[in-house]
Amino acid sequence: MRYRITAGTVMTLDPAGTIHRPGQVSWENGTIVSVGTAESDRRPVDQTIHVPAGVVMPGFYNGHNHAAMTLFRGLADDSPLFEWLQQHIWPREARLTADDIYAGTMLAAAEMIRSGTVGFADMYFEMDAVAQAVADSGLRGWLARGLIGTQDPDGEKLAESVEFARRWADQADGRIVPMLAPHAPYTCPPPYLAQVAEAARKHNLGIHIHLAESHQELADITRQYGRTPIELASDTGIFRNRTLIAHGVHILESDLPALAGLVGGVIACPVSNAKLASGILPYRLLRDAGVPIGLGTDGAASTNTLDMFQEMKAMAWLQKLRDGQPDGFRAVDALRAATRGTAAVLGFPGGELTTGSPADLIVVDGRQAHLMPEWDVTANLVYAGVGSDVVYTVVAGRILMAEGIIQSFDEQAIMRDVVSRVAHLTD
Amino acid sequence: MRYRITAGTVMTLDPAGTIHRPGQVSWENGTIVSVGTAESDRRPVDQTIHVPAGVVMPGFYNGHNHAAMTLFRGLADDSPLFEWLQQHIWPREARLTADDIYAGTMLAAAEMIRSGTVGFADMYFEMDAVAQAVADSGLRGWLARGLIGTQDPDGEKLAESVEFARRWADQADGRIVPMLAPHAPYTCPPPYLAQVAEAARKHNLGIHIHLAESHQELADITRQYGRTPIELASDTGIFRNRTLIAHGVHILESDLPALAGLVGGVIACPVSNAKLASGILPYRLLRDAGVPIGLGTDGAASTNTLDMFQEMKAMAWLQKLRDGQPDGFRAVDALRAATRGTAAVLGFPGGELTTGSPADLIVVDGRQAHLMPEWDVTANLVYAGVGSDVVYTVVAGRILMAEGIIQSFDEQAIMRDVVSRVAHLTD
Repeated sequence: MRYRITAGTVMTLDPAGTIHRPGQVSWENGTIVSVGTAESDRRPVDQTIHVPAGVVMPGFYNGHNHAAMTLFRGLADDSPLFEWLQQHIWPREARLTADDIYAGTMLAAAEMIRSGTVGFADMYFEMDAVAQAVADSGLRGWLARGLIGTQDPDGEKLAESVEFARRWADQADGRIVPMLAPHAPYTCPPPYLAQVAEAARKHNLGIHIHLAESHQELADITRQYGRTPIELASDTGIFRNRTLIAHGVHILESDLPALAGLVGGVIACPVSNAKLASGILPYRLLRDAGVPIGLGTDGAASTNTLDMFQEMKAMAWLQKLRDGQPDGFRAVDALRAATRGTAAVLGFPGGELTTGSPADLIVVDGRQAHLMPEWDVTANLVYAGVGSDVVYTVVAGRILMAEGIIQSFDEQAIMRDVVSRVAHLTD
Repeated sequence: MRYRITAGTVMTLDPAGTIHRPGQVSWENGTIVSVGTAESDRRPVDQTIHVPAGVVMPGFYNGHNHAAMTLFRGLADDSPLFEWLQQHIWPREARLTADDIYAGTMLAAAEMIRSGTVGFADMYFEMDAVAQAVADSGLRGWLARGLIGTQDPDGEKLAESVEFARRWADQADGRIVPMLAPHAPYTCPPPYLAQVAEAARKHNLGIHIHLAESHQELADITRQYGRTPIELASDTGIFRNRTLIAHGVHILESDLPALAGLVGGVIACPVSNAKLASGILPYRLLRDAGVPIGLGTDGAASTNTLDMFQEMKAMAWLQKLRDGQPDGFRAVDALRAATRGTAAVLGFPGGELTTGSPADLIVVDGRQAHLMPEWDVTANLVYAGVGSDVVYTVVAGRILMAEGIIQSFDEQAIMRDVVSRVAHLTD
C-alpha cells in the first residue's frame, strides 16, 4: 500500500528546516518515498489524505517514560517526594498485576497517539505486558525493565532482562527495541553497573538509566564515591554502549570528559524536573559539548501528562529563564529535541520527513483560534500548540489515529478497563 | 430563564473546597441560585444540560492581557526584546486600525471562550473596538487604554480614558468595567502617575499598570529615582485606588510596607515572565503578606497562548522550582489564582460556585485519556488539563460555548477576517 498526505504545510525538520506550502508526504512499507511541494509526486497511491489546514511534521519520540504509571496520575500529588513514594506509590505498585500494567500502558498509548507521540522509551516492570501493549497499540517502544542492583545479588533479574530482549527483539515488525535499564547510581552500585555494561556489550543492547537527576543524588554519590554520578557511571563502562541518560539536570562542566565517549545522549524531562523541584538542565553546556539532547515526559504519576507539546513549552520557558535572556533557546530547538533529538539519542533514523526515513508522522489541525495567524508555524506549534491539536498519527506507515479517532484499538474499552482496575488500587 | 447543569463533578472552589459528585449548578438572570449534589434542587428549569463525565467549575479570569495582540502571535518570536519591539511590533501596531483591533480581540475572545476564560483585564488602544468585541463576544472585560505619560503632556489621553469610561460603564449588561492604565513607571513619570491617581479617585476607577516586571526596570527606576518601582508607584498615590499590578516579578521584601495599603493585588504572568526571561514571582512573599494574587497571560504576541491552563501549569512548575521543594505550591493554589484570585484583585465577586455568585462557569470533559484515572480532579485539571478540554463556557448566565461550539458569534468568519487583515500587516 502506498499512501500520501497533502496539507497546507509540510514541516520536514530536515537539517535545512525545509517547509513546503502546500506540501505532500508519500510512504510505502513504513518508509517515506517522497516529500515536497503538493505537486512534487504524481505517482498513483492507494490512499490519499487531504488536510488543507493541516501541518504535517515528524511525530514525537518520548525519550523517558514509565508508561503504566498513568494508573497513578494525580495520586497524592504535591506531596513531599519520599512520603509520596513510600506511602502512596510503592505500596500500590507492589499490588500491580501484569494485566494492570498492560491496561495502564494502553491508556498511555492512547494519550501518546492522541498527542502526536510515535514512540517512547520505557522503564518499568512486567515488561512483557508493556511490550504487548506496544505491539497492540502500533507505537514504537524502546523497552527495559528497571533493575535495582541492590535487590539483584545473583544477577537473576539482569539475566531475565536479557531473556526479555531475546523474546521481543524481532516482534511487532521491528517496532520494539529492548534495552537494559539499571535504575540509577543510588540503587545500582558500581559493580552491578559494570555487570550491566558487560551484558549490554555482549548482547548489543542499549542502556537506559536515571542519572544526575537531583541535587540530593549528586551530593550523596559524590560523598559516597568521591565521583559525580556521571563520572561514576562512566567508570563502570556503561557509556561504551549506547546509553540514554534520563534527566541529567545536575551534569557539571567537570563531567564533560566523562561524557566525551558517550554514544547516546541525554533526555531532558523539564516538566518532571520542575514539578519535583529538581532543577533545570544545563542545555547549553551539553549542546556545546556535542551531546545529543532529546526530550521525555517521565511517568504520568509525577508529570501528569504525556503531552510532548507541554514538554516543549516547559523546555523553552525554563531554558530562557536559565539563560536570563529570551533569544538563546528557540522554538525550533525544542521541536528538534522532541523529534530528531530523542531519535538520535536512541540511534534511530526517525525525526525528520525525508525520503528513506521511517514513516512516523503526525498532522496538526492549524485552523484553530489559538494557532492563528501564522507568522511562524514553528512558534505556533511549540508555544501555542497542545496535544489535542493532533488529528492524524502515523507510525511505521500505519495510521494509528485518523480525524482524531484512534484506529488501532478500542480506546473506550481501555478507559473503562482502567477505571475498574483503579477501583481495586484504592484503599 | 432558569438553567441547570448536572455533571459527574461540581468543583465549587468555595472557601472549604467543596466538591459534589455528582452535582448540579442552577442559575437565573446571570446569578447562581443553587449548587449542590445532583438531587439538591428539584425546582423546574427552562433548560437542563447533562454532562455525566463533565467537571463543572468556575471559569477563569485572565488578569492581564493585550487581547488584540493575537494578531502578532508568533511574529519574530525568540528575538531580543528591543529588536522585537522596535523592528517588528511597534511599526505594525502603528498601522493597526480600529477594525483590525476589533478583529484581533474577537480572535482572542474565541480562544478565551474555547479555553474556559470568562473575563479578562485588557490594556491596549482603540479601546472602543475592544469594548465592542467584549459586548459582542459575551465575555466580561476590565478595559483600559494604555497611557504613555511621556506622550501625554496635556493629559488629553487621560481625559479621553475618562470619557471612554463614561461611555461604556453601563453598556453590555454590566460586563464592561472601564479602568485607567498608566503603562509603566518607565513610560509614566511620577507627576503623571499622580494625575492618573487623582482622576481614578475622582471617577471611581481602578488602575491597571505594569510594575516590577523586569530586572532592568528595577535597576533603572531605582537608579533614577532612588526608590523601587513599587515604592515609586505607592508614593504617587495610585495604590489608594484599586490597583492591578501586572507581573510584580521583582517585588522585594522591602517593598511590603509600600504595598500594605494596596486595594487590588498582583497578577502573575508566569509564561510571559519565563518566555521573556524576566524571572519568577515571589509568590510566597506576597501571599504571606496578604496580597491578593491572580493570574494572567499577557498578550499573545509574547505568550503565544491565552490558555489559562498553561498559565496554571507554568505557575506551579516555576513556584516549585523557586521553592526548591515540590510540596509548597499546590495545584489548588494555581486553580484559585486563576479564578477567585484574579477576581479578588479586580474586586469582582466571581471565582467560586456559590449561591448568589455570578454565573460564570465552565464544563471540562473529564472522559479523556489524559484526564484519567481520577485520583485527584484538581491535579488532573491543573497538571494535565488543556484549554481544549473545555466543552461549555457560561458568562453572566449566557451559554457562550456549548459542546465545543461557540454560540455568541461566528468564529469561522472571525478567523477568515483575521487572515485577510494580517496579509496587510505583512511587509
